[in-house]
Amino acid sequence: MDHAEADAEFHVRLERIASEIETLLAELLEGTSGSGQRPWPARLKMAMRHAVLGGGKRLRPFLVVESAALFAVPREHALQVGAALECLHCYSLVHDDLPALDNDDMRRGRPTVHRAFDEATAVLVGDALLTLAFDIMSRETTHPDPRVRNRLVATLAEAAGPGGMVGGQMLDLMADGRFSDPQRALSLAAEEIVALQAMKTGALLRFACMAGAHMADEHGEKRVALARYGAALGEAFQISDDLLDASGEATMVGKATGKDARAGKATLVGLFGVAGAQARLEGLVDAAQSALECFGTQADVLRAAVRFVAHRRT
Amino acid sequence: MDHAEADAEFHVRLERIASEIETLLAELLEGTSGSGQRPWPARLKMAMRHAVLGGGKRLRPFLVVESAALFAVPREHALQVGAALECLHCYSLVHDDLPALDNDDMRRGRPTVHRAFDEATAVLVGDALLTLAFDIMSRETTHPDPRVRNRLVATLAEAAGPGGMVGGQMLDLMADGRFSDPQRALSLAAEEIVALQAMKTGALLRFACMAGAHMADEHGEKRVALARYGAALGEAFQISDDLLDASGEATMVGKATGKDARAGKATLVGLFGVAGAQARLEGLVDAAQSALECFGTQADVLRAAVRFVAHRRT
Repeated sequence: MDHAEADAEFHVRLERIASEIETLLAELLEGTSGSGQRPWPARLKMAMRHAVLGGGKRLRPFLVVESAALFAVPREHALQVGAALECLHCYSLVHDDLPALDNDDMRRGRPTVHRAFDEATAVLVGDALLTLAFDIMSRETTHPDPRVRNRLVATLAEAAGPGGMVGGQMLDLMADGRFSDPQRALSLAAEEIVALQAMKTGALLRFACMAGAHMADEHGEKRVALARYGAALGEAFQISDDLLDASGEATMVGKATGKDARAGKATLVGLFGVAGAQARLEGLVDAAQSALECFGTQADVLRAAVRFVAHRRT
Repeated sequence: MDHAEADAEFHVRLERIASEIETLLAELLEGTSGSGQRPWPARLKMAMRHAVLGGGKRLRPFLVVESAALFAVPREHALQVGAALECLHCYSLVHDDLPALDNDDMRRGRPTVHRAFDEATAVLVGDALLTLAFDIMSRETTHPDPRVRNRLVATLAEAAGPGGMVGGQMLDLMADGRFSDPQRALSLAAEEIVALQAMKTGALLRFACMAGAHMADEHGEKRVALARYGAALGEAFQISDDLLDASGEATMVGKATGKDARAGKATLVGLFGVAGAQARLEGLVDAAQSALECFGTQADVLRAAVRFVAHRRT
């Protein structure tokens, strides 16, 4: 496939997977799957569904499903892993948006959970979605082999924990100068910002790209290729996010923009300027695409994915 | 052993396990165990340690270790499960104490995390501890068999999720009349209060009592016995908590007391009065003790545990 064909195919598949994931998440969020469980409280269930359903590109589930397809992993297993990961991603958005953290009123063009409901409910919704992610991941429907399920749980917990996503969140607040020296934000070195973002946004995206290898119990060259692809894609994602914040319009992006500059926040765009950040972004797109060489044309849609991530407008 | 001997032995073992768990938690909260992980941010680590270390009876780890001992499960495995469970328990306390939820300033006689640090840090500390619990549970050091680790993760996620602990939290806020009819709290039936508490406090205590059976891959009569014991102990714990709130002194309990009555909260003490609740409590102590019949005198210390839970003063 040439780029234009691959890009078109990417969009078809992204939409198809988003629709499959939406259906699966709606089922999982009925709260009827656990055998010995009591029914979920109505308000909690409603707020969890508000947080998860009806929006989002579902990029992480797409990466899970397409990386799994490279190893011919059954699609129904990949979808379960994708759904678990999306629950975890949505929890992080709900807690990020809280007044004590980013204090955002809008998300995906709709009121955030603490605005649509209240703060206590939003805290519990995040807790419930994080727990549910591990619940789904450990179920037999996700993979027949308990060794694989255990590996998925272990790597997801590492990616999402204090040495990964939550740690990145904390560094982000510290880089804001929230707790101490307000000049600290401006003095962050490029490597520190990259490390911060590799944890905050990158860890889950890397997990998504590696999920196929975990499900296929692959430990060789192909696993390394996906790890390199995931690392480059993760950084590209964050730079393009910063570029969108610097130049995007709130109505298109679906959330408040220009917040980073107003907050004097350390970003790569702030450090390198828009042109410098764009150059770095193109380097990452090349790196991500060539990392997948061992998969040949089979990986054309994943190559299109990183171009999309880098050049998206929302 | 007669009661007095068993009670003395119980206290010796409770203290010994608390000390072993404290050492293990201090190690686990160094954040150096994960191989490919980045270092934990200093502020996050400090606040996680504040939340977990230096206090608490460690009742849940005790129940894990003693239930595992009934099946001769290696103690080092039981301690890891106990430490994972304690991390999860501590996360629930940190989020419970937040201003948007119970708004508590003191916990175990020390400032709560959002008072000692700040609210954003407290949200992230809870998220990090919850994730770390699943991280620890899925590691090889916790149990050599990945099937068992997967079972532990699955049952813990169910116990802690929207059909368990988090759901109970939500019902508790609803019973407070927080979201709608302020008369609702007073009209809660006894069965509703029991169901709420079976989720909020009971689910983790039941998990603790069942952990030994999971680790030993036990599926027969002994598993059922521990399930019945855990259910009775969980309810006894909550009634005695309510009795303490109604009659205890803040300096002894280490946190604010009398809050339930001031908040007009639905509790079994409110419903049955102190004497009625005490009678129900004694029935539960009997039920928990006789549930362990198949273990003979081997379970004397677990029988002492439920007497302790029912009659504790802090």
